[in-house]
Amino acid sequence: MRMYDLITAKKNGREHTREELEFIVNGFVNGSVPDYQMSAWMMAVCLKGMTDQETAILTDVMAHSGDMVDLSPIQGIKVDKHSTGGVGDKTTLVITPIVAACGVKIAKMSGRGLGHTGGTVDKMESVPGTRTALDQEEFFAQVNKIGISVIGQSGHLAVADKKMYALRDVTATVDCIPLIASSIMSKKLAAGSDAILLDVTCGNGAFMKTVDQAIELAQKMVAIGTHNGRNVAALITDMDTPLGHNIGNSLEVMESMEVLKGRGPADLTEVCYQLAVNMLLLAGLGTEEECRAMAEKAVADGSAFEKCKQMFAAQGGDISVLEDYSRFASARYSREILAEETGYIYSHDTEKIGSASVLLGAGRLTKTDEIDFAAGITLHKKTGDYVEKGQSIATFYADDEALFDSAEKMFKSGLVIKGEKPVEAPLVYARVTKNGVERFY
Amino acid sequence: MRMYDLITAKKNGREHTREELEFIVNGFVNGSVPDYQMSAWMMAVCLKGMTDQETAILTDVMAHSGDMVDLSPIQGIKVDKHSTGGVGDKTTLVITPIVAACGVKIAKMSGRGLGHTGGTVDKMESVPGTRTALDQEEFFAQVNKIGISVIGQSGHLAVADKKMYALRDVTATVDCIPLIASSIMSKKLAAGSDAILLDVTCGNGAFMKTVDQAIELAQKMVAIGTHNGRNVAALITDMDTPLGHNIGNSLEVMESMEVLKGRGPADLTEVCYQLAVNMLLLAGLGTEEECRAMAEKAVADGSAFEKCKQMFAAQGGDISVLEDYSRFASARYSREILAEETGYIYSHDTEKIGSASVLLGAGRLTKTDEIDFAAGITLHKKTGDYVEKGQSIATFYADDEALFDSAEKMFKSGLVIKGEKPVEAPLVYARVTKNGVERFY
Repeated sequence: MRMYDLITAKKNGREHTREELEFIVNGFVNGSVPDYQMSAWMMAVCLKGMTDQETAILTDVMAHSGDMVDLSPIQGIKVDKHSTGGVGDKTTLVITPIVAACGVKIAKMSGRGLGHTGGTVDKMESVPGTRTALDQEEFFAQVNKIGISVIGQSGHLAVADKKMYALRDVTATVDCIPLIASSIMSKKLAAGSDAILLDVTCGNGAFMKTVDQAIELAQKMVAIGTHNGRNVAALITDMDTPLGHNIGNSLEVMESMEVLKGRGPADLTEVCYQLAVNMLLLAGLGTEEECRAMAEKAVADGSAFEKCKQMFAAQGGDISVLEDYSRFASARYSREILAEETGYIYSHDTEKIGSASVLLGAGRLTKTDEIDFAAGITLHKKTGDYVEKGQSIATFYADDEALFDSAEKMFKSGLVIKGEKPVEAPLVYARVTKNGVERFY
Repeated sequence: MRMYDLITAKKNGREHTREELEFIVNGFVNGSVPDYQMSAWMMAVCLKGMTDQETAILTDVMAHSGDMVDLSPIQGIKVDKHSTGGVGDKTTLVITPIVAACGVKIAKMSGRGLGHTGGTVDKMESVPGTRTALDQEEFFAQVNKIGISVIGQSGHLAVADKKMYALRDVTATVDCIPLIASSIMSKKLAAGSDAILLDVTCGNGAFMKTVDQAIELAQKMVAIGTHNGRNVAALITDMDTPLGHNIGNSLEVMESMEVLKGRGPADLTEVCYQLAVNMLLLAGLGTEEECRAMAEKAVADGSAFEKCKQMFAAQGGDISVLEDYSRFASARYSREILAEETGYIYSHDTEKIGSASVLLGAGRLTKTDEIDFAAGITLHKKTGDYVEKGQSIATFYADDEALFDSAEKMFKSGLVIKGEKPVEAPLVYARVTKNGVERFY
């Protein structure tokens, strides 16, 4: 077998066999397939596509390029959750305790933030003392004992994906549904859960800009999971506006705790319930109505918040901050961002809000940047709200006043205020399962 | 400007500007654009194409990546000729002396053979003493004095093409009309002639397998030349069967001299006349009929053969071999290849005939292989001829008897003998000029 012939095959639109995909992926990992051949092949994949079967095999081969986590020492059904990312995307911190409180096992590995989107592991570390690097024994023991652990993703999962992603990132082959789907799902397959709920975000703050693109990606990922023996479903959720009001690590933890305490913002609360319900459905805990009732009860009776505190405590976190937010380290400076005109916020580019928070210190531009956990943004007015000139739209928090100007400029460059009120977007556009697509709008 | 964005642009099918193409090509030559980005871009070009204008600019940028030869010290109209290659493609040795004998200046740089196709420079060097590496001063002086010089191509022409070709060769991006056309034409633009006749071969022994592909390539190359101020035309010629009977370096020189002496094989003679006539037309020497008469006269009165001898003599060659072929070094061994059945030669894969001649020592498999000038094949029967079982189809020549078996196996693997006579293919399928396509069949 020669890589040259496999590039030619894909260039001509042919479907690869498992043997060929193993040759390509394993060859790239071990260096026998050079990067210039891999990038030509990936460009051909972008332009000629891959069948569902082919993508499923590619994903399985990528998953097996690193450690395959065996979660069988953990009793019960393990359900994982993945979000394709967004600004102020704090749902994991809310729904995993809800689902765990209902009896489903959460043994989750999560990523760090890069660019305008935040990462769950970073948010967790804003709770002082929290450890997110547990060894496997401790991780399994914690899940067996309290039903939940969320830790940082091991560097040994889906090794091929890391190397392929680095090359895609410099060869304009990121934006390709089979490659995005196999990248995400290879890590999920390797992480070992029985069932996986995908939160596929769409809108100006997400990677998928339209609902149709998001559905296409979701279908591909559900097909990959199904083909590889996992129970997978996806919700298509809105990312034209950040969920809730807070963007930034400790700010998002506070808001997540508010949801668990039953007093969170309506949009965030509703999306979290829908995600939690679908995780419970995947675990087979009942009908949709029964699962909804279970999830609401876990919040109402405090068991979900209790589960969250148990998790942080087990991982060394100072859980007093979850009760009393004033115990979080706070930012040295704040600035109110004032509306420059009167009218409705017609649209507000979510990616730019996220970039503004990164400029304030809440995120990373490069992998080695340090995060300021206290930095971030609290939005007082979001898309659809009416503002008067001079009224505060948002509060910025940072450790250095010099950061405010560029962040404000970035924030306002995505803000459109108009006389007319925009059409309200749904929170959840659709659900994709192996049985098909249900649209909710 | 970032290469990432330019790859994205081509992936989305956008046309590049001159500034962008300069960034890509010059960046690749100087190393600021790495090979993995270049290969992704070239794959996008293969799958998304390029407009004629874009290809013309790309070619001009590639030409300017190395020396641009200024032929203005040579008086008169300079006409160049390029063949896309084939087996037994000896036309350059015939037509350049004819055209020079008619008064057109030939200042031609030619390539060496690689793979199953031969190169003019190798064939010339089979004439003992012939130098094909002349410095520019000597080259110009010879053309000014006797009207003709054919030398090896300088390594400093179209530097970008060399580097791009090496990458295309390992990334399955060879087979792409805009990249083939720009590769060929960048060297032709750099070589400096006023007019260029392209011999675009098609058939089983050529790179372009069908007439339509060959016409498409020819149109692209004519458009490139026209856009860059050169007078360009192309003939689409048949390469389903080798021209003439001889394949191999000194064997092809002998056959070429036979054509110049007015007694060459009919197919080779006719194609040479048509190519020569079109070079004379490009030089503006008269109507097609007038040019044909001129070319035939140059052969009939011996002036073309005389011009050929002048060229070899000026470049140090022992021209006695051109009169008396027995003075060529001869092969130590020969073998007759016998028909295994009776019938018509229905088809004979030209590429396999070429590969058989390479196995005999007449060509190179890698750039550093040494050529045996005396080795090769004389075909006694070609496609359409009737043979009887046991009759000789061809004579093989080699310096080592051990080479015959594998060469015979290769040769016969492409041979099909049937009871029915195949349809006769035309020698020249079409002519492409800036005014359009004329088909001759």
